[in-house]
Amino acid sequence: MSNVTVAISPDWTIDLDIPGITVVEWDFKSPAPADKIDIAVAPHITTSDLVERVANTGTKLLQLGSIGYDPIPRNLPAGLSVANAASVHETATAEHTLSMLLYSTREFDRVQRAQEAQSWDQFDTKGLADSTVVLIGIGGVGSAIAQRLAPFETNVIRVASHRREDMYGQVYSIADLPELLPQADSVIVVVPLNKKTEGLVNDEFLSLMKDNATLVNVARGKVADTDALLKHSDRLRILVDVTDPEPLPDGHPLWEKATLVTSHLGGNTDAMIPRMNRLVRRQVGNLISGEPFVNVVLGGDRA
Amino acid sequence: MSNVTVAISPDWTIDLDIPGITVVEWDFKSPAPADKIDIAVAPHITTSDLVERVANTGTKLLQLGSIGYDPIPRNLPAGLSVANAASVHETATAEHTLSMLLYSTREFDRVQRAQEAQSWDQFDTKGLADSTVVLIGIGGVGSAIAQRLAPFETNVIRVASHRREDMYGQVYSIADLPELLPQADSVIVVVPLNKKTEGLVNDEFLSLMKDNATLVNVARGKVADTDALLKHSDRLRILVDVTDPEPLPDGHPLWEKATLVTSHLGGNTDAMIPRMNRLVRRQVGNLISGEPFVNVVLGGDRA
Repeated sequence: MSNVTVAISPDWTIDLDIPGITVVEWDFKSPAPADKIDIAVAPHITTSDLVERVANTGTKLLQLGSIGYDPIPRNLPAGLSVANAASVHETATAEHTLSMLLYSTREFDRVQRAQEAQSWDQFDTKGLADSTVVLIGIGGVGSAIAQRLAPFETNVIRVASHRREDMYGQVYSIADLPELLPQADSVIVVVPLNKKTEGLVNDEFLSLMKDNATLVNVARGKVADTDALLKHSDRLRILVDVTDPEPLPDGHPLWEKATLVTSHLGGNTDAMIPRMNRLVRRQVGNLISGEPFVNVVLGGDRA
Repeated sequence: MSNVTVAISPDWTIDLDIPGITVVEWDFKSPAPADKIDIAVAPHITTSDLVERVANTGTKLLQLGSIGYDPIPRNLPAGLSVANAASVHETATAEHTLSMLLYSTREFDRVQRAQEAQSWDQFDTKGLADSTVVLIGIGGVGSAIAQRLAPFETNVIRVASHRREDMYGQVYSIADLPELLPQADSVIVVVPLNKKTEGLVNDEFLSLMKDNATLVNVARGKVADTDALLKHSDRLRILVDVTDPEPLPDGHPLWEKATLVTSHLGGNTDAMIPRMNRLVRRQVGNLISGEPFVNVVLGGDRA
């Protein structure tokens, strides 16, 4: 195959200076910039209209800019595959999660108060080593978090929707949480938002956590019940990267009650650019060589 | 060998409930609590008088509570070994260092200001992934830092007093810093304090670092020149766990100029207690079995 055309959203800076590859920029709002588009690389934010945008251009792959693909309709044109951006965003979000967890376990909120008071304040913390971390969600981001936790000498208890064993050992299920949460020094929530996970972190969940334990929500705001977070914020250390409502309105009580609110910064680093480059170059290479596309989440017929 | 007597500073809670082992508490200030003390486990802070305290008790091992042993005189009585507390403190200090590094690279100082203003503030950072970290000092703590950095997809350049290769690759020397520092997004300093390292982080050193790069000092306050830190604090991100003078006086300008000042909290977690237990139990076991003591830094004759 030659004369491959790749249309790329200006959200991305992709280096595709390869003979036989034509690259066109496309914002996915104006009409398609070519009659034939083999691979369409969508904007960072996935919207429901992307599939109709690539209709009639013979597109073989719609490469999304996000891991989540909920907005995409399930009735795809024949021959179209949709791939998500797994491998692009995990790094930054896992790094952010470790930053939040360490901020809490080493009590950098107290450090910050000492610095504002300009006064030396030595104190002991329990620290992260030897502590028990319950990690709820072990998809791409959750697994990247587990990898980064591995050298910290912690006891990581992994929880997913279904109980199983994998190469790293036992995976517990959401149904096991009543026994697991009371053991946790820290709980990290990184599940996808769906009907089963909406409101998972509610009053009952938080009541099972012991005093002064840390909750980190890097999933979606609606996975936690905001009133329940506020209710338990004097007893627990609440750290959230996502909120409900989001953006968190100015002056909302969670700003004061939470140990830390980060403004949905999880994925916001330069790390996504080289990783999106690698993914798109791999997809183009696979199209040329006849290998299957990677990360295909919908469709899967090849023309 | 039986009837082993172990004298332990009340700084430590050591579980030595083993037949044939007599444990006595000793503050190392009052007279020796037994005529014969086989192993003396010193307080957390090492002082110059510890060796004379154990004179005339036939002590075979003086187990220090710290990694540093500079205060101990070099002319030891025959038969006395001095062991440092390597393996006890590295975990907590490495964990603290990662906390500081992530705080800086994910700009949690800006996050904190948004939270105080109670206002949503989304922004991008370079992040830690793909960045270059120059790690100066690869003893116990430095190696523990390198281990924890390994899953973060960073380029770690290790620097020690002498150039060499080890199982992890190239180790550069302090003399290479003029070429290395301009590449660094972050520099971590974790060298022991001695004549060669005092004032290492001076105006010349900091001038070689690029704008907005991060400096983390978890070594000793005097390894950095405080005036030089202040001079570069508008251009660099300065994070210090140790200061000169230390404690940093109330209202000292570094409180305002540094991105983060933590009050020498590096080793202050519960992690040291189980690790000191393991070390002391190993030393007792080695005495009983006739194996050499571990961590011996001075002396080394066995009675």
